[in-house]
Amino acid sequence: MDERLARLCLATVAEPGHPAMAAAVSEFPAAEVWAGLIEGPDGPLARRARLLQPAELAARTRATGQRFVVPGDEEWPSGLAALAGCEPVAQLSGEPLGLWVRGAGHLGELTSSAVAIVGARASTAYGDTVAAELAAGLSEAGRSVVSGGAYGIDAAAHRGALAGATPTVAVLAGGLDQPYPSGHGALFSRIAEHGVLVSERPPGEHPTRVRFLARNRLIAAITQGAVIVEAAVRSGARNTITWAQVLRRVAMAVPGPVTSATSVTPHRLIREAEAVLVSSVAEVLELLSPLDGGVVRPVGERRPTDELSADELRVFEVIPARGSLGAGEAALRSGVAVPTCLALLNALADRGFVDQCDDGSWRLVRRERRAAV
Amino acid sequence: MDERLARLCLATVAEPGHPAMAAAVSEFPAAEVWAGLIEGPDGPLARRARLLQPAELAARTRATGQRFVVPGDEEWPSGLAALAGCEPVAQLSGEPLGLWVRGAGHLGELTSSAVAIVGARASTAYGDTVAAELAAGLSEAGRSVVSGGAYGIDAAAHRGALAGATPTVAVLAGGLDQPYPSGHGALFSRIAEHGVLVSERPPGEHPTRVRFLARNRLIAAITQGAVIVEAAVRSGARNTITWAQVLRRVAMAVPGPVTSATSVTPHRLIREAEAVLVSSVAEVLELLSPLDGGVVRPVGERRPTDELSADELRVFEVIPARGSLGAGEAALRSGVAVPTCLALLNALADRGFVDQCDDGSWRLVRRERRAAV
Repeated sequence: MDERLARLCLATVAEPGHPAMAAAVSEFPAAEVWAGLIEGPDGPLARRARLLQPAELAARTRATGQRFVVPGDEEWPSGLAALAGCEPVAQLSGEPLGLWVRGAGHLGELTSSAVAIVGARASTAYGDTVAAELAAGLSEAGRSVVSGGAYGIDAAAHRGALAGATPTVAVLAGGLDQPYPSGHGALFSRIAEHGVLVSERPPGEHPTRVRFLARNRLIAAITQGAVIVEAAVRSGARNTITWAQVLRRVAMAVPGPVTSATSVTPHRLIREAEAVLVSSVAEVLELLSPLDGGVVRPVGERRPTDELSADELRVFEVIPARGSLGAGEAALRSGVAVPTCLALLNALADRGFVDQCDDGSWRLVRRERRAAV
Repeated sequence: MDERLARLCLATVAEPGHPAMAAAVSEFPAAEVWAGLIEGPDGPLARRARLLQPAELAARTRATGQRFVVPGDEEWPSGLAALAGCEPVAQLSGEPLGLWVRGAGHLGELTSSAVAIVGARASTAYGDTVAAELAAGLSEAGRSVVSGGAYGIDAAAHRGALAGATPTVAVLAGGLDQPYPSGHGALFSRIAEHGVLVSERPPGEHPTRVRFLARNRLIAAITQGAVIVEAAVRSGARNTITWAQVLRRVAMAVPGPVTSATSVTPHRLIREAEAVLVSSVAEVLELLSPLDGGVVRPVGERRPTDELSADELRVFEVIPARGSLGAGEAALRSGVAVPTCLALLNALADRGFVDQCDDGSWRLVRRERRAAV
């Protein structure tokens, strides 16, 4: 069996974020894993596999306007590789075996400098306004916005981004032919006109709790940072921020009135230094690329920071555009241990990205200054 | 001339926060400094000194219901000593030569575990509500609230505290017989019934810009921490937070809607890790005394932490009541350099205040556990 079809079959019978399946497919060709499942001992997975009709599933994928994208495809988001071997969250982990994609957008390009905006379904008017304005501003600045498909902050973020210049990406927990919530069918169609809808589940499947949690890891992985706009004490959006932390993306939170129950989680994240407070598009852009200073950058253009390792980039991105930062603070903000952070700062200094001030703190070397070196 | 009267005269002719005067009086008896001024070379200070009628000023102090308190008096706030030799802010520094005090409260006792609540004159209804609720809760918890006498957050904080159990302290920039703003005469009288009004200026004097700035250093010095509730980009309250930082008090900020201009300064302080986000009375109490856990403590009772040095206390106070903190993060939050912070954490561990978790982070040793050691 062809690798793509084997992955499509495996992704259909296994639940997303199934660590054993991801491990098997990372070691063996998917066609071998599939054959082993069909021919091997009985079990729930094997039973589902034997009932599956691969050609029918592939046809249904096409018939519902979807394509099945796999690692190695040009459209495959490079950020998903970070999920391979990363620490599990709620027992979920692993790079997806493949993704169902619907829409005119190019998933790889749209996620090359994307920002997640997540938050409560039961948002307030304040939260909806802030989410929509952040999304519109990021979209205008050439950053695609990634979110789920829920009511509240997710929908506000997509609507805001649809008003901007860069298409938006909705990552759904169920099949892309099954709009959930059903009231968002029209919104999803508008997103698909220029952007994309993405799912780890095949056509016909409904979202479940575990699928929402597994979906959150994709939102964090395909973005450079995640902004949580509003979330009450118990919140799925908090889980996306945990994934952003595990995957070393920039975790950001929008404050709100302390009298609002939906600002409790953002405030706690900020207070515990688990997320950086952001109050504007400019602040989000500065955190994502301090070197760019919020300048719109055409999709696909190489940046000097592309040469940095994930850890170097993580430390580099916390150094502010103006002023300087001590190594201890840089360690805290980047979530890297202090000694490692110091080593990374020295490595960045050797390569001309930062330098050390007289007081021992670290500052950015500006592009102009670096060019002159 | 008697030392107290000499200080009263010197405090009248010199502007508050005059570093040279504070330095002179810390080296020589005030009576000698006064005699030197009267008999010495001509100059603006000498001219003012020669015009002053000491007995008349002392009589006017008494006649307006005020007392003049000096260092060494039982009522002198112990926190003011931190101003001696500290780094100047806007060229102001120094322990006051004396303070005019009016009201039934005992200034020393009221400021033994006080919290400053500061913010914008042009506050919003949201800011007023939060300031009043924080003040009422702190007052109920046995903490006196210290603020200025302005419209907006200052007034909201006093009104909130007046509804609580512990009297409040208003530190004014002009003479205590000259209510400023004049519309706050009744509020000041209510504060004086159980609390105190405090000023570094004698009766009859009006506030000026420099007197407001010098007043801010007193608010920071006589409190364990300062909470900024609302403040726009340019703000006097920001100056009080700077003083709190210089004097190593806990700097705290209340977030608000990102759409509100009066939350710009609190958000910036939180974002730059210059102040810790607080959203409730419990969070303020936890930051001030993690060991107390917000329990009401009778004024004057000795706490175990009284034996700690200022730096030890500073590090100790950032260790959270629940969970643990890495040394890097503790350094950031306490504003102490990382190596110093590690040394202080080890010293605190030796004395049973904290211990180190298996992952290397630091946690509080609870009172019960410490008692059992």
